[in-house]
Amino acid sequence: MLKNLEKIGKLLLLTCVILIALSSPGTAVTAEENAQAISDVQTALTFVWLLVASALVFFMHTGFSMVEIGLTRSKNTANILMKNFMTVTLGILVYWAVGWGVMYGADASGLIGTDQFFLMGADNATFNGWFFQMVFAATGATIVSGAMAERTDFKAYLVYCILMVAIIYPIYGHWVWSGADMALLTGAESPIVKAIGVAHHDFAGSGVVHSIGGYSALAGVLLVGARIGKFKNGKPMAIPGHNLAFAFFGTLILALGWIGFNGGSTLDGNDAYMNLVVANTFIAGAAGAVIVMLITWLKTGKPDPSLTANGLLGGLVAITAPCGSVTPWASLVIGIVAGFVIYFGVMFNENVLKVDDPVGAVVVHGYCGTWGLLSVGLFSVGIGNGILADAVYAAEVPGLLYGGGIGLLTIQAVAVIVSMVWGFGISYIFFKIIDAVIGLRVPEDVEIMGLDIAEHGIRAYPEYQPAED
Amino acid sequence: MLKNLEKIGKLLLLTCVILIALSSPGTAVTAEENAQAISDVQTALTFVWLLVASALVFFMHTGFSMVEIGLTRSKNTANILMKNFMTVTLGILVYWAVGWGVMYGADASGLIGTDQFFLMGADNATFNGWFFQMVFAATGATIVSGAMAERTDFKAYLVYCILMVAIIYPIYGHWVWSGADMALLTGAESPIVKAIGVAHHDFAGSGVVHSIGGYSALAGVLLVGARIGKFKNGKPMAIPGHNLAFAFFGTLILALGWIGFNGGSTLDGNDAYMNLVVANTFIAGAAGAVIVMLITWLKTGKPDPSLTANGLLGGLVAITAPCGSVTPWASLVIGIVAGFVIYFGVMFNENVLKVDDPVGAVVVHGYCGTWGLLSVGLFSVGIGNGILADAVYAAEVPGLLYGGGIGLLTIQAVAVIVSMVWGFGISYIFFKIIDAVIGLRVPEDVEIMGLDIAEHGIRAYPEYQPAED
Amino acid sequence: MLKNLEKIGKLLLLTCVILIALSSPGTAVTAEENAQAISDVQTALTFVWLLVASALVFFMHTGFSMVEIGLTRSKNTANILMKNFMTVTLGILVYWAVGWGVMYGADASGLIGTDQFFLMGADNATFNGWFFQMVFAATGATIVSGAMAERTDFKAYLVYCILMVAIIYPIYGHWVWSGADMALLTGAESPIVKAIGVAHHDFAGSGVVHSIGGYSALAGVLLVGARIGKFKNGKPMAIPGHNLAFAFFGTLILALGWIGFNGGSTLDGNDAYMNLVVANTFIAGAAGAVIVMLITWLKTGKPDPSLTANGLLGGLVAITAPCGSVTPWASLVIGIVAGFVIYFGVMFNENVLKVDDPVGAVVVHGYCGTWGLLSVGLFSVGIGNGILADAVYAAEVPGLLYGGGIGLLTIQAVAVIVSMVWGFGISYIFFKIIDAVIGLRVPEDVEIMGLDIAEHGIRAYPEYQPAED
Repeated sequence: MLKNLEKIGKLLLLTCVILIALSSPGTAVTAEENAQAISDVQTALTFVWLLVASALVFFMHTGFSMVEIGLTRSKNTANILMKNFMTVTLGILVYWAVGWGVMYGADASGLIGTDQFFLMGADNATFNGWFFQMVFAATGATIVSGAMAERTDFKAYLVYCILMVAIIYPIYGHWVWSGADMALLTGAESPIVKAIGVAHHDFAGSGVVHSIGGYSALAGVLLVGARIGKFKNGKPMAIPGHNLAFAFFGTLILALGWIGFNGGSTLDGNDAYMNLVVANTFIAGAAGAVIVMLITWLKTGKPDPSLTANGLLGGLVAITAPCGSVTPWASLVIGIVAGFVIYFGVMFNENVLKVDDPVGAVVVHGYCGTWGLLSVGLFSVGIGNGILADAVYAAEVPGLLYGGGIGLLTIQAVAVIVSMVWGFGISYIFFKIIDAVIGLRVPEDVEIMGLDIAEHGIRAYPEYQPAED
Repeated sequence: MLKNLEKIGKLLLLTCVILIALSSPGTAVTAEENAQAISDVQTALTFVWLLVASALVFFMHTGFSMVEIGLTRSKNTANILMKNFMTVTLGILVYWAVGWGVMYGADASGLIGTDQFFLMGADNATFNGWFFQMVFAATGATIVSGAMAERTDFKAYLVYCILMVAIIYPIYGHWVWSGADMALLTGAESPIVKAIGVAHHDFAGSGVVHSIGGYSALAGVLLVGARIGKFKNGKPMAIPGHNLAFAFFGTLILALGWIGFNGGSTLDGNDAYMNLVVANTFIAGAAGAVIVMLITWLKTGKPDPSLTANGLLGGLVAITAPCGSVTPWASLVIGIVAGFVIYFGVMFNENVLKVDDPVGAVVVHGYCGTWGLLSVGLFSVGIGNGILADAVYAAEVPGLLYGGGIGLLTIQAVAVIVSMVWGFGISYIFFKIIDAVIGLRVPEDVEIMGLDIAEHGIRAYPEYQPAED
Repeated sequence: MLKNLEKIGKLLLLTCVILIALSSPGTAVTAEENAQAISDVQTALTFVWLLVASALVFFMHTGFSMVEIGLTRSKNTANILMKNFMTVTLGILVYWAVGWGVMYGADASGLIGTDQFFLMGADNATFNGWFFQMVFAATGATIVSGAMAERTDFKAYLVYCILMVAIIYPIYGHWVWSGADMALLTGAESPIVKAIGVAHHDFAGSGVVHSIGGYSALAGVLLVGARIGKFKNGKPMAIPGHNLAFAFFGTLILALGWIGFNGGSTLDGNDAYMNLVVANTFIAGAAGAVIVMLITWLKTGKPDPSLTANGLLGGLVAITAPCGSVTPWASLVIGIVAGFVIYFGVMFNENVLKVDDPVGAVVVHGYCGTWGLLSVGLFSVGIGNGILADAVYAAEVPGLLYGGGIGLLTIQAVAVIVSMVWGFGISYIFFKIIDAVIGLRVPEDVEIMGLDIAEHGIRAYPEYQPAED
C-alpha cells in the first residue's frame, strides 16, 4: 500500500514536471502571450484597413473635383480646381486643429466635444481614427462648392469652408457619431432617444456627411443666386459643362471611393459585415444609375449621360446610412427610389424652387441623403435577425417593413429634420454674415469673363479658345 | 516515510493547482480559443485583401473608359462613356441576379451553375467572393465595347452586355473556375481532363476574362463592319483618337488594377505567393511595352505611343494565366512574346483580316490571352518544384520546357480552342439575333454626325469645336 | 491518514489526466503552433499592406505624368507621356536586372551591393520587398524627366533613365537603406557614422528619392538649357501649361500615393506608427499648400494655382524623411517652411540661377528634400521619448530643438551634401557623356514644331488645334 502510494506519488511528480514544462511561461510561449499577439494583429489589421479606406475616401476629392469641373464651363476651371484643392488642404489643418475635437472630444451636454484640439495627447489609434474621419470632413464643404460654382467669391468660399470643417459638420457629427451617452440623436441618455425609445442610425453618413452638405448647399445657392443666363423668363436653361469625360471619370472614382467610405465605416478590419456593406452599396448605386437612364430615356427619347451619372451617386448616397442594416433586395429598392429622387428632385429644383445647382449637389447629397436616412427606418433587419446574425454596428431594431413598428422610422425622420434645420439654418446664417463682410458673389463682369482670369490671373487651358469666345 | 508522502502529496496538490490556474479554460484563454481567433484573423485578412483587390479591379473600368475614349473621336465620347458606365452598373445588377449563380451555383453536368441567383442565402464570405468576381464580370463586355466603338447602336450594345454578364462569361467561367468535380476544363471528373490527365490552369483569367472578351469582340467587329473611312481601297487608314493623354492614363490605371486582378486571384490574403504573382505580372507587362516600342521604332523610325501602351496591356493579359506558376525569367519571355503578338497581331487584323478595332481589343485581349494560356503549358514550374515549393493555387505539373511533357500544353491548347469557339461562336449568334431584332449598326448619317448628338443629344466637349468641323 | 493520502493521490491523478488532456500536444493545437500561425499572419499582413502601399506608389507615376503634361504645352504631350511610360516600364526591368542588386545585394565596402541581380534566389518576401522598392525606383528618373521636358531628345532620356535606375538611385539608396554595417551614411561601421556618432535617418526618402531626383534634374536643366522663349533679355517668361486640370488631378493623385510612400515605409504592417506617419504627412503637405497660396496672394494679389499645388508637393517631400520621427506640430512647421522653400526656391531658380524647370522639380524635390533631411536634425523626438515610446524605425536620438544636441543635425547635413554632390555630380557626368554620344537636346526646329510630331509622328489631340497655331 505504501509502496503503491509512493509509486503513485512519483508518477504524479513526473507528470507534473512534464506539465509544468509544457505550460510554464518560462520555457515557451503561453496562451496569454498568444492572445495578446492576436489582439495586436487584429488592431493592426484595423489600422491597415482604415488607412486603405482613408486612401479611397481621400481619392474621392479628386473625383469631386473632376465632376465639378466637368459639369461647369472652362472659364471657371482653375477657380474650381483651387476651391476643391484648398477645401482638402485647409480641411486637413482645420479638422486637426478644431474639427476632430468638436466632433469626438469630451462631450458637453450631448451637443459638442470640448477637447483633443490639435490632437493633443493622441496615440497611434487616435491618429488612425483621425485620418479616416478627416478625409470625410472636408466632403461637406466640397458638396457646397459644387452647388455654388461659377459665381461665388473665392475668399468668401474659403471662410465658409473653414466654418464647415470646424463647426457645421463636426457638431452634427457629434450628435450622431461621438458615442457620447448624451449625444443628441444617438446617446442612450439623450432626451430625444429616450422619448422615442430607439437610437438614430446613420452608418456612414447619409445624414452626417451628405444631408448636411446638401442642405448647406441649398442655403448657399439660394443666397448666391443663379448664374447669369440660367433662367430666362423663369425657365431653366441648360448650361452644358465643358468636359463630360471628366464628369464620368470623377463619378467612377467617387464610386470607387465608396468602397472605403462605407466599407471602412464598421471601423473594424475584423468585422465580416464589411462585405455585406460593400455588396449593398454597389447594388444600390447600380440601381440608381440604371433607373435614371431608363427615366430619361422614356421622358426625352434619349438616355441622358450626366443625369445617369448622378443616378449612381444618388444610389450611393442613399445606401450610405442603411448599407450595414439591410438586405441586398432592400438595397435594390433603395437604389431604385434614389433614382426617382434624382430625376424628380432635379426637375423640382429647376422648375419649382428655381435654384441653380450646376452639379446637382442638393439633389444628390441632400435629397438622396434624406431618403437614405428614412430607408433605415423602413428596411432595417435589426441586429441578430437573419442576415445580421452577428452584426454589431447596424440599426438595432427592425424597421417598419420588417415588423419593427414605427419607432426607428420616427427617430430617422427626426434626424432628417434636425439635419435639414441644422445644415440649412447654420449655413444660411454663416453665408449671410460672409455676404455682409466679404461679399458672397463675384461682380457681373467677373462672372461673364470667368473667375479664372479674374481671381487667379490664368486660364486652365490657355492654348484652347472656347468656341463661344 | 508517511511524512514524506504527505509532503509530496501537498507539493503535488499545490503544483496541480498552479497548473490548473495556468491551463484551465475557466480562468484564462485556451490554445483552442486562440486557434479560432487566429483563423478568424486569417479570414478577415482575406476579406480585407479581396476588398482592396476588388477596388483596384473596379478602378480598371475607369481605365478602360479612358483608353477607349482616348483612342476614338470626340464626337462619340459621350456615347462611349455611357456604354462603359452602363456596362459596370448593369453588370453589377446582372451578375447579382444571374451571373454569379450561373458561374458558381450548384453544378449541372459540369456545364452550368444552377442556384444562388440574387445571392440567395449568401453569407459575408459569399458577399466578399461575389464582389471580387463581380468586378471581373463586366470586363468582358467592356472589351467588346471598345472594339465595336463609334458605330454600334446603344440599345443593341446594352442587350449584348446583359447577355455577356449573364451567360457568355459566367458559363465559360463555370468550366474553369467553379471548382465543380465535373467542371468541363478543370474538374477531376470532366471527360476532357480525364482524357488528357491534367487539369487546365488559368490563374486570373487570360482565358476566362480576356480571351472570351477578345474573341467575342472579334465576332462583333466582323458583324458590325468597319467604321466609315477606315479602309480605302482595302488599305487600312489611321483614324487617330482624340486624346492620347486619356489613353495613357487609362493604360497606367489598368496596370495598377492588375495588382488586384492577379494579386487577389489566390483568393487568400495569407498566401505569400501573391508576391511572386505581382512581380511576375509587372515584369511581363514591362517587357511587352519595351518590345513594342523597339519594334515600332525599328519598323517606322519612330517609337509609336499607342501601340507601346498596348504592349504593356498585352504583356499583362498574357501573364494573367501563368503568373502564379512561372519564374520571373519566364515572365520576361512571356511578356516579350506578347509584345510581338501585339505588333504582328495588329498588322494581321488590319491588313489580312481587315477588321476595324479602334482600341486593338481583339489583339490585346484575344490573341495575348491565347498566348497566356499556352505559355502555362510551356513554362509552368509545377507545384512543389523550385520557386513553387509551397504553392497551392498554381498549375499542378511542369510545362513542356520544364520537363513536364506535352500534357499541360495539350489541355491549355484545348482551353484555347474552347475559349475561341465559345467566345466567338455564342457572341456571333447573339449579335446576329440582336442585329435582326434591334439593328447592330447606327445609320450612316448618325455615324458621320457622331453618336453623341444622335443617341444622347449632347456633345462631350461643347465649348470646343473639333478642327475637322 | 493513509486513506487521506490515497484520496489525495487519486485526486491528483485525476487532475493530472485532465491537465494532460488540456495541454498535450497530441490532442489539440499547442501554443507553439499558435505562435507560429500568429507570426505567419503578421507576415501576411505586412505583405498585404506593402502590396497596397506599392499600388498607391505605382499610381504616383500616373500622377507625375498628369502633372508634367498639364504644366507643359500640348505639342509635347505625346512625348512626355511616352517618356513617363517608358520610365516606369524600363524601370521595372532595370530595377529587376540591376538596381535591386546594387541597392540591397551583399555589401562591398559600404558602397555598393553586389548580388541578387535578376532577383536570383528570391523568395516571396524578397518579391514583396522588391515590388515596394521598385515602384520607388523609377521616381527619380521621372523627376528629371519633368524638369527637362519639352526640349530633351527621347533616346538620350531613355539612356539616362536606365542609368538612373541601375546606378545613380540604387547606389545612394545602398548608402542609406541597405542596412549594411558599413553603409556609408547609416551603418554602425561607416567611418562617417562613427566620426559623428549618430546614424543618418531618411525615413521614406526625402534624400534617397527626392533630393537625388531633384539635384540630378538640376544637372540636366543646366546642361540642356532653357526652352526657346523662356528667357527674354535674361528675364523669365511664363510658358503656361496646356491643362491645369491635369496638373491638379495629378497633384492630388501624388498626395494619395504618399499614403503608401510614407505609410508603407515602416515596412511592417503590424507597426502602429504608420498612423503617426500618415497624419504627419498630410499635416505637412496641407501646410505647404496653404502657405504658398497665402504668399502668392500677398505678393501678386491673386492666389496662384500651380504654385499652390507645388506647395502641397513641397510639404510632402519635406516630411518624407522626418514623418516617423516628429510630432504633428513639428510637421506643421516643416510644411510651412517647405511652402516658403517652394516660393522663394522658384524665384531663385528663375531669377538668379536662370534655369528653366517647367514643373518646378528642382525646387519641389531637390530643395524641399534637403529641407526634409535637415528637419530631422531639428525636430526629431528620439526613439523612446514621448510620442515615439515604442517606435522602432525612427531617428534614434532627439534633434537640436528637442535637446539632442548638434549630432543628428550634423549627420543630416552631411547627407544633404552627399546627396547633392552625388545626385548632381554623377548626373552631370552621365549627361555630358550622353550629350557627346547621342545629343541631349533636340534641334531648334523640332522644339518649335513640338516633339510629338518630330519624335513620334503624332499629335496628342489631333482634333484640336492650339490657338497659337
